[in-house]
Formats: sequence, structure tokens, C-alpha cells
Amino acid sequence: MRNREIVVDEIEAPEPEAGQVLVKTLACGICGSDLHALRHLDHMIEIQKRTNPLASTMSPEADVVMGHEFCAEVIEFGPETKAEIDTGSRVVSMPVIFDPSGIKSVGYSPTHPGGYGQYMVLAEGLLLPVPDDLSTPMAALTEPMAVGRHAVEKANLGDDDIPLVVGCGPVGLAVVAALRQKGAHPVIAADFSPRRRDLALAMGADEVIDPAVDSPYDHWQDLAWPEGTDPTDPLLRLSGVEPRPGVIFECVGVPGVIQQIFDQSRRNTRVVVVGVCMGPDTIEPLVAIGKELNVQFVLGYTASEFADTLRGLASGDIPAEPIITGTVGIDGVAQAFTDLGDPEAHAKIMVDPWL
Amino acid sequence: MRNREIVVDEIEAPEPEAGQVLVKTLACGICGSDLHALRHLDHMIEIQKRTNPLASTMSPEADVVMGHEFCAEVIEFGPETKAEIDTGSRVVSMPVIFDPSGIKSVGYSPTHPGGYGQYMVLAEGLLLPVPDDLSTPMAALTEPMAVGRHAVEKANLGDDDIPLVVGCGPVGLAVVAALRQKGAHPVIAADFSPRRRDLALAMGADEVIDPAVDSPYDHWQDLAWPEGTDPTDPLLRLSGVEPRPGVIFECVGVPGVIQQIFDQSRRNTRVVVVGVCMGPDTIEPLVAIGKELNVQFVLGYTASEFADTLRGLASGDIPAEPIITGTVGIDGVAQAFTDLGDPEAHAKIMVDPWL
Repeated sequence: MRNREIVVDEIEAPEPEAGQVLVKTLACGICGSDLHALRHLDHMIEIQKRTNPLASTMSPEADVVMGHEFCAEVIEFGPETKAEIDTGSRVVSMPVIFDPSGIKSVGYSPTHPGGYGQYMVLAEGLLLPVPDDLSTPMAALTEPMAVGRHAVEKANLGDDDIPLVVGCGPVGLAVVAALRQKGAHPVIAADFSPRRRDLALAMGADEVIDPAVDSPYDHWQDLAWPEGTDPTDPLLRLSGVEPRPGVIFECVGVPGVIQQIFDQSRRNTRVVVVGVCMGPDTIEPLVAIGKELNVQFVLGYTASEFADTLRGLASGDIPAEPIITGTVGIDGVAQAFTDLGDPEAHAKIMVDPWL
Repeated sequence: MRNREIVVDEIEAPEPEAGQVLVKTLACGICGSDLHALRHLDHMIEIQKRTNPLASTMSPEADVVMGHEFCAEVIEFGPETKAEIDTGSRVVSMPVIFDPSGIKSVGYSPTHPGGYGQYMVLAEGLLLPVPDDLSTPMAALTEPMAVGRHAVEKANLGDDDIPLVVGCGPVGLAVVAALRQKGAHPVIAADFSPRRRDLALAMGADEVIDPAVDSPYDHWQDLAWPEGTDPTDPLLRLSGVEPRPGVIFECVGVPGVIQQIFDQSRRNTRVVVVGVCMGPDTIEPLVAIGKELNVQFVLGYTASEFADTLRGLASGDIPAEPIITGTVGIDGVAQAFTDLGDPEAHAKIMVDPWL
């Protein structure tokens, strides 16, 4: 990313410092956040400065090699490393590096190139070896799938919870997969795109709904009440019949969706905001107050969620294969950013910088 | 409230139906929500219909006798009652009545007059006798103080939590009192008004801050870190030192405050929205996402929280006496609505409809 455009150029390979490892990128998924970063760079920088002043930030002037959903091959250990993994092994890693100057994002920092380039340096302590029987592109899904896992952990699911996933882009699909992994039932997912609804079914959704045809919220509400009851009957409430608790995952990330969820929730619904709305958004607090809603905003994942996700991909618990809809070389990244705008065409495009 | 104005008129006394009791109002506090209802009636009705279609709603055409923070005297038991409380006794009650047609709010319904009038009917099952040594106006504070208790329960306070109360109107003061009752420490409260800061101290705040002079958020942040540490030092985070968890109570209820809290929170802060913002509000989801904030919107209280609050007032655990800053008769209600706009003059005005 140079001057707010995707360009291909040759730059110096990064050099591993103390505790770091030089790796060669084998596959790196293109993330919606990278599209956001390209389109809303100044806003993203401003918010990053406000929310986490200790993190290194990007600047419009400095080149950034993006890409933070990667599987890589260990090439060379830097100084002060333990070198317990064989060179030539495949690894994944959370895309962060920390040193005494602070925490840096691999792929979102001018100093730490990400996986759309051929080489990266990673923190040795974060490397996770990839099991032999897991394909390289599937291993590269660890990062985006971990986002869903984290969102589901933050939802504090109870046995009786009915989850609704609003939006089945890569984030929503990751949430669906994590809900399936946790045994939630039924898992309802909604998207306007037929292809994405098919992917949601493949990832483990029990039911998918096209909001152009049916209200996903109405269906989710109906399922919450015991069969044969009429939720609009005032006597039902007085008789002590309570609906099953519910949690709605916001995986769209455009203005208005949070308030739409407020409007369509029932009392005590938990809303987990996973979609990243870049601009300001308008809510009506009175609606949320009247229903005593809880809104949990989430970002990223923990190290153990990341590792669990890799295990889930390897064991087949996360059947994510179908979401990989294409592969491009470095030269194809700019076009892939455009192609990802069509939900019928693509879900996740992998970059192989050696193609 | 007739045609969006406060008027005084004589109407029929209500008659108790099955399971109901006729009471005489002894004292009734004026609540900010009643001021809201008067100014924003159409909006309030619209939102109520959207959030709780089963509740009876007000209409601009029908008179409403407002008042839902009352202490009353039992006059006469209606049909199908147990009559286990002596007539002449003082009681408080949650301001709701339910029958087969749904749930009605006493004081917010054309059919169920509230405590600014001389007589009400209440549900027998909700009556709580007032202990002899608790004054009538103090008993009338059960309802507004229970609002604070509920907000604090919904905050799921941990032993180590540092609470910050933003706004010290009656709602904020109730939260301060409930925090004190729960043993939270230190309790920090902020308000521009010197009188309200004094009241917050009287209710149990450990520290009060004038936002015109100091940032309450900065002070709250500083307290979260071990003494002698510098939160801006990147090495601090890498060394594993974590701040104490924090919860911020939004008790102002005007647009912009929720986002102000988002901006000034640290990671993982829980925000409890107790203040009632009547109109739409703008938030920046990206800020809340970056810090993984949790927002709990709250309303009302449970029956046990209401009863606990009455006990707390009777035992002296909730030292609420100083917040009662005036008493008026029915003729004084309209002027009291205006007078409550000055935080230096008043916090809670009691109506004695027999004055």
C-alpha cells in the first residue's frame, strides 16, 4: 500500500531481530480490514491513535506490506532464539510483534511487512507448527477463523442460547463455524447472497435465511418460544413462560445494522459486534434501554483461541475449505481487492506471493 | 398531563379491581422521566410501542396522572384480595399492575393514575409495608434508589473493579448509593454542579470531580494502575502489569456522552447506560471495537432489588435523606418541573397531594 494504492515493487527483505524468525510466506488470505485500510486510511490511523496510543500506527506516507492471515515456512532464526522448530517447517502465528518500543501489527505497520510479500519476520514465541495433514491455504485460515472463535467466546453462550448470525462474509462464516464447534443449536445465519448462504450451511449453520424473502429476526424470535405458544398473547408472559435467551452476532459492519438489531431484538438479548463499521453510526439508546440489551464489541482473539482454531481446522471440526474461492499471485492482489466486492464470486482469496 | 401540559383537575378516584388495593398517596417523588414524557411524549410512545408492544401505552389525547415514586396508605382492599396488611398502614410498591390484558405502568397509563394524585390502585401482591422508623418521604425514595441498585447488579462488579459515575442527578446518586451498599471502593463520581457533588459525597462517593476542572476519566485511569507505574510506558504492558478492571455508569442521558465514555475508557471497560437519552445518539463503533468495550443498557429493577432497597433505606445503608430538597402540593407540580432544571437548587422534590 503506497499512497493509498496497491502497487507491486521490490523492497529489502526484513531481517530478524532478537527473538524473531525470518519466514517465507506460503499463503496469505485477503482480509476485509485491508480493503477498509486502503479506503479509510486516515480515519483508521486516527482511531488507532485514539484507542491504542501505544501501538505503532501506519502513516499515509510510509509503504505498508499488508497481509495478516498467513501460513509461512521457517527460513532462518534471528539472534537470541531457541530454534526449536526445524527450518523448512510450516508455521502460523498471530500477526503481532512486540519489542521494548511497543506492540506492532504484522501487515499493518511500515516496519513489519505482512504476508502479501514474500518474506516476513515473526516473533519466535508465537509460532505454531502446522500439522502435516492440514493444507497450507487451510492453515492460513487460522487467523480469520480465530476471529469468529473469539466472538463466540465473548458471547458467553449458555446451553439454551439461540444464536443469529447477521451477515455471512468471512467474519460471519467464522462465527458460524465457531458456534458449530461450541455445539450451539440451532445456528441461524442470514445473508442476501445465495452463495454466502450456501457457505454458511457448509460451515455448520442449521438454517439460512435470505432477508429479502423472510425476516431472520422473526424466525429467530419464533424459535425462542415453546412450540404452540403465541408470543403476542399477553397471558403467555403472565403465565411465566420465558423465551430462550438469544445472542445476535453483527457481522455486516455498515451503519444502521446495530440499530436494526436493537429494533428486532427481544428483552435481554446480547449483541456481539464483530463487523467493523468504519464510520460513525446512529443508535437509539431508548430502544436498547427498554429491552436492557447488552452490546459486546470484540476484536482479535487470544493466543489460546488462535491455537484452538488451528487444532479445529486440523481435526476437521472447522470445515472451512469451501470458503477459499480463489488464489492469486502478488500481481493479482489489486484486482482481488475489487473482485472481493462481489459476494457471489468470492469469499476468501488467497495470495501466494511465489506464484 | 393533559395535552402535553401539567394541569390540576378533579377526576374520579380509581376503583380497585380483583387483586387490587385502593391507597392514598402520602408522598411521591418527581422523576426526570416524567419531565421527559412531557417534552417528548410522541417519541416516548413510539419507542414504547416498538420495544414492548404488549405494554399499555400512553396517548397524547388521554389524560395521565403521573407519579411512580410513591409511599402510600392502604385504604380499602378490592375483590379477591387477602387483606393481610392493615388498612391505614404505609406501603410502597413497584409501579406496575398486570391483568389479563397486559402490563400497565402506574403513573404512565391513562387507566392507572400515579402518585401526583391523591388516590391510586396498586397490585396487592406487590405491596411492601414500610418499617415504622422510616419516614414517608424516605420510603418514597425506594423506587428511584432501586434504579441505582439494579444498574449496579447489572454491572456484575468484581472485588477489584473501580467504578466511575458520570453525572450525579438522582439516577447517578442512586448508583453511588448502591455502589456504597455493595462495598465498591473507591467510588468516583463526576458532576459540574457543586451541590450535586456534595450530595454524591453524602451518598457515599469516595471522590468527586468537577469535569470543568479535572478529567474524571484521567483520574479514574490513574487509580487503576499500581502506584509508581507509568501507564504510558510500553514496557509496563510487556511486563504483564494489568490495570484494575473498570466500569463506567452513564447517568447523564444526553447525546454524546456514550461516545465520550468510549473515547475515555480503557480496554475491556464495561459501560452501564442508566441515563435515558431520549433522541438518537451517534457512536463510533471502531473505538468500542478497538477496546472491546461492553455496553449494558439497563431499565427498572427486579422485585428483590426493590425490596432490598427499601431495607437499605430503613437500615441507614442508603443515606438518601439529603437528596430530598423540597416538597410541594398538587398545585406546585408544574413549577417543580421547572425548578428541577437547576441542579444547584434541587435534586428530588416530593409531592404531597394532600398539602
